[in-house]
Amino acid sequence: MSKRIVVIMAGGKGERFWPLSRNTRPKQFLRLLGKNTLLEMTLDLAVTIPSVEQVWVVTGKNMVEQIRSICPELPPENILLEPVGRNSAPCLGLAAINAKKRLGAETTMLAMPADGLIEDKEGFVRRAEVAFSAAESGDWLLTFGIKPTRPETGYGYLELGEALDEERGIYRIKRFHEKPDFIDAKRYHASDEFLWNSGMFAFRADTFLSAVSTHAPGLAEGLARLEEALGTPEYPARLAEIFPTLPAESVDYAIMEKADNILTVHTDIGWDDIGNWDALDRLVEKDADGNVVVNRALTVESGDNIIVGEDVTIATLGVEGLIIVATKDAVLVTRKDQGHNIRKLIEKIKEDDELEGLL
Amino acid sequence: MSKRIVVIMAGGKGERFWPLSRNTRPKQFLRLLGKNTLLEMTLDLAVTIPSVEQVWVVTGKNMVEQIRSICPELPPENILLEPVGRNSAPCLGLAAINAKKRLGAETTMLAMPADGLIEDKEGFVRRAEVAFSAAESGDWLLTFGIKPTRPETGYGYLELGEALDEERGIYRIKRFHEKPDFIDAKRYHASDEFLWNSGMFAFRADTFLSAVSTHAPGLAEGLARLEEALGTPEYPARLAEIFPTLPAESVDYAIMEKADNILTVHTDIGWDDIGNWDALDRLVEKDADGNVVVNRALTVESGDNIIVGEDVTIATLGVEGLIIVATKDAVLVTRKDQGHNIRKLIEKIKEDDELEGLL
Repeated sequence: MSKRIVVIMAGGKGERFWPLSRNTRPKQFLRLLGKNTLLEMTLDLAVTIPSVEQVWVVTGKNMVEQIRSICPELPPENILLEPVGRNSAPCLGLAAINAKKRLGAETTMLAMPADGLIEDKEGFVRRAEVAFSAAESGDWLLTFGIKPTRPETGYGYLELGEALDEERGIYRIKRFHEKPDFIDAKRYHASDEFLWNSGMFAFRADTFLSAVSTHAPGLAEGLARLEEALGTPEYPARLAEIFPTLPAESVDYAIMEKADNILTVHTDIGWDDIGNWDALDRLVEKDADGNVVVNRALTVESGDNIIVGEDVTIATLGVEGLIIVATKDAVLVTRKDQGHNIRKLIEKIKEDDELEGLL
Repeated sequence: MSKRIVVIMAGGKGERFWPLSRNTRPKQFLRLLGKNTLLEMTLDLAVTIPSVEQVWVVTGKNMVEQIRSICPELPPENILLEPVGRNSAPCLGLAAINAKKRLGAETTMLAMPADGLIEDKEGFVRRAEVAFSAAESGDWLLTFGIKPTRPETGYGYLELGEALDEERGIYRIKRFHEKPDFIDAKRYHASDEFLWNSGMFAFRADTFLSAVSTHAPGLAEGLARLEEALGTPEYPARLAEIFPTLPAESVDYAIMEKADNILTVHTDIGWDDIGNWDALDRLVEKDADGNVVVNRALTVESGDNIIVGEDVTIATLGVEGLIIVATKDAVLVTRKDQGHNIRKLIEKIKEDDELEGLL
């Protein structure tokens, strides 16, 4: 049996959780849901999959130290460095050539973002084993499809095709659907034929690299040059030179939506990608007035708000439906229905040199 | 001619500007309207009245150092200490016995709060001279009545009686009216017979002390005991012992509403007591979206807000009609129509020992 590893993609910037998330402290390092960071929760989950031999983390240089302090038992070589963030296709390409070199081309990789939430941990472990098994033949690229629990417009959807193994919940995919409008989202939610595209995958390194060659030749060419340098003293310099030139594309866009050997594992594991502040409404217990309060707040005649203060006391009087997040140097006030538009603020901050320190 | 002094009442706590105002930094020390504190603006105004010989400030011990750093040229003896805040009647009683002792019983005092705003400075100086002259006979206690510019429900009103000197705008007062409801406020605003009660006064020390004897015997008795100790080594101890026992009443309630020798000087000087955050809507120039921004803010699709950040950047997205005030350790978010209810928050903070540092 080929070796099994989990690859945690931890390079994300998490701008949507500004002002708590910053360049040097993206979402995976936040304690949004309790005493552990999202990265810790993901690592804890990865190591509970019995058949997994190694857990790798792919991340940026400026996050390595934080990762090592969160998880000192992680061997240094299990942290793969991305010189710059180039989205998930180059990230997993880097992991795949390393897996091939270190553990063999038939190594099976389960890839997952560092900053998602999985509530049903045992259910996830069972589905992960199913996905590993299905990927091990080398014929398939597996995605994890999540049974929708609401008409979410913030996620992409997978439209199910023929059942390949109904008992184990393995299906072909008829089509990938981008984030839908609300009408379509309601239709998908009501149907049994649509699953959320979770951004988690399972495949053998060689299967993935072969799909890259077919569907993303630019990426394949760069990875091949990198692969030659792996294990040589030139590797760091080559990585710094080549990686930033790789096309910054998601795995979905570059590979999955084009390949015809895609399967999905049908799962129902309380998954949430915690896309922006309003996700806390679903995931955190509310006070008697319907406020989500992370850390501490003082509320008078205020309900239905999301209030997150870091080393700052937030006091509200007579307000409803707001998102209020405060740190020592920056405060965000917006409405719940605007949480997904926070990039508009980030863009404005980027335009202003004097505000650079806030990113 | 008796000596003329200005007495600035600077003991107020200014809770209504929390979280910017704190116990150790009340409203008079805030820079709400530009680069100067309200106290500086008041001091600057007082010294421009040509006939005034001295400016005194009555305040609490924990504010003396701030006052001396704001106004180093103020002679130390011109700062009168209140051991505790006991509202304006004891404050002006203390000033009156000191004026009598130091400058003579016929000294004329113009009393004004440290934290108001007067836009028409020349107009104020002219009206101040009128009030001084009228008070100097020793027959009258003068109030400054302000021509209303809006149907304000947050101020008390003076109902004008007979004109004593129409040319100089001096009237008897028929009645004091407490803060009215909106219907009455509209009626007062539309009428020519109602003025705002500004909390500024002019009287001779002896006239005031005689009114105290008649209408506030408890206060008079305490002041008499204090007066005996003035200029002796026992004074600080007697002050600390007696002052906290004086009835904590306003000059209006304790004296003015009861005395029959009250006059008002009819003025129209752009006066505002800056009662709470929503006053900034009237007093600060707005940005193109109708936001009042003190210091710096980042606003996207947000209008009609009051945004005050101190060493903190406030970013808003898609919100309207809010008051947002942030300091390094506390954030307030409320609606403009709730600005006058901020004491509800202050009460809640007082109940919680862990939050004491925020007051």
